[in-house]
Amino acid sequence: MSGLFITFEGGEGAGKTTQCRLLHDYFKGRGRDVVLTREPGGTPEGEKIRNLLVQRDGGQWTPMAECLLFFAARQMHVEKLIKPALAAGKIVICDRFSDSTLAYQGYGHGFDHDTIRTLDRVTLQHFTPHLTFLLDIAPDQGLKRSLAHNQSTTGSQSTEDRFEHLKLEFHEKLRAGFLDIAQQNPGRIHVIDATQSADQIYFAITKIVEAFHAV
Amino acid sequence: MSGLFITFEGGEGAGKTTQCRLLHDYFKGRGRDVVLTREPGGTPEGEKIRNLLVQRDGGQWTPMAECLLFFAARQMHVEKLIKPALAAGKIVICDRFSDSTLAYQGYGHGFDHDTIRTLDRVTLQHFTPHLTFLLDIAPDQGLKRSLAHNQSTTGSQSTEDRFEHLKLEFHEKLRAGFLDIAQQNPGRIHVIDATQSADQIYFAITKIVEAFHAV
Repeated sequence: MSGLFITFEGGEGAGKTTQCRLLHDYFKGRGRDVVLTREPGGTPEGEKIRNLLVQRDGGQWTPMAECLLFFAARQMHVEKLIKPALAAGKIVICDRFSDSTLAYQGYGHGFDHDTIRTLDRVTLQHFTPHLTFLLDIAPDQGLKRSLAHNQSTTGSQSTEDRFEHLKLEFHEKLRAGFLDIAQQNPGRIHVIDATQSADQIYFAITKIVEAFHAV
Repeated sequence: MSGLFITFEGGEGAGKTTQCRLLHDYFKGRGRDVVLTREPGGTPEGEKIRNLLVQRDGGQWTPMAECLLFFAARQMHVEKLIKPALAAGKIVICDRFSDSTLAYQGYGHGFDHDTIRTLDRVTLQHFTPHLTFLLDIAPDQGLKRSLAHNQSTTGSQSTEDRFEHLKLEFHEKLRAGFLDIAQQNPGRIHVIDATQSADQIYFAITKIVEAFHAV
């Protein structure tokens, strides 16, 4: 059985984590080996880079250095975890991947898109997901959900909430960026209306997965 | 007065640190503002990356991730420290720079040279030193010196000796690599015979610096 690399993308509060878990269980239930992972991180080395990037005390990185760190963690992730799992016929489900770097650092923070694409190509050598689900939701709705979720699970603000407190305008650019990237990759990226219930989203995703497998 | 960016390159035990300090004092004695710095590192963020790279417990990095981390630290270094100092008319003397990445990761460890050059170009956008001194010494002589130096200064093996214990064959490739890079950059890189005494090396370097300034 051949491996399959599926990524989830989208802004805050779109429900990526929930849908990653549901899709994990879906494949498990069908007897498949599934690896559930996330970015930045996914390897011991990548988690060290994640700490530099995500924690508030990580440093004042330039946009370029930030991109290089993301791709360093990502390349480790691909070589050490994702490719070996795919080679063993496993399903790999990843919460965020390259599209997030282009959306956040490029569309969101205004860093040069071509530079990000060049770094992607040079470091990953055209390695891309087989399927990507973009969970699309209006920023005001997504941020409200994300905030509610953090307060209910931690009782306080998360320590990894750096991105979540950037202003709404940023999240508008982010959403438009993700939709733009989806339009440029119509074969790979499927846009899912994330205002639907978790069940409805799950149904939409598994329908696409089944169609993909049937091809 | 215009800024000047000078780098020192070479294998272990070639005397780079000593010559960096001597050249620092040379410029100070002539009333110039001088910044003495090193790679990897040079900024608070870069030092965090240095810790990931140089300490033995940093992780098992892929050659690609290692290069990306080096260039992330370097790009921060250039933007936050080197360029502002040059813009203020200062002299910047740096112990290792891009040539070391090409020599160590490329010639030494066999990582693709074109990939390193592409990363260099994309991240630094053609920023290069005005002058580079390559302190050239046969690896067996250099390693002997380096070991003697570490034992006399620390009484034990340095914790940052990762590169120094790689085998002699590696250091032969490294030396040949540095000489190759020098040949490709004859206007910028000056090869200095590092078997000479520190005084003789200093004399050779300051003669080139004076000639450079006279142009």
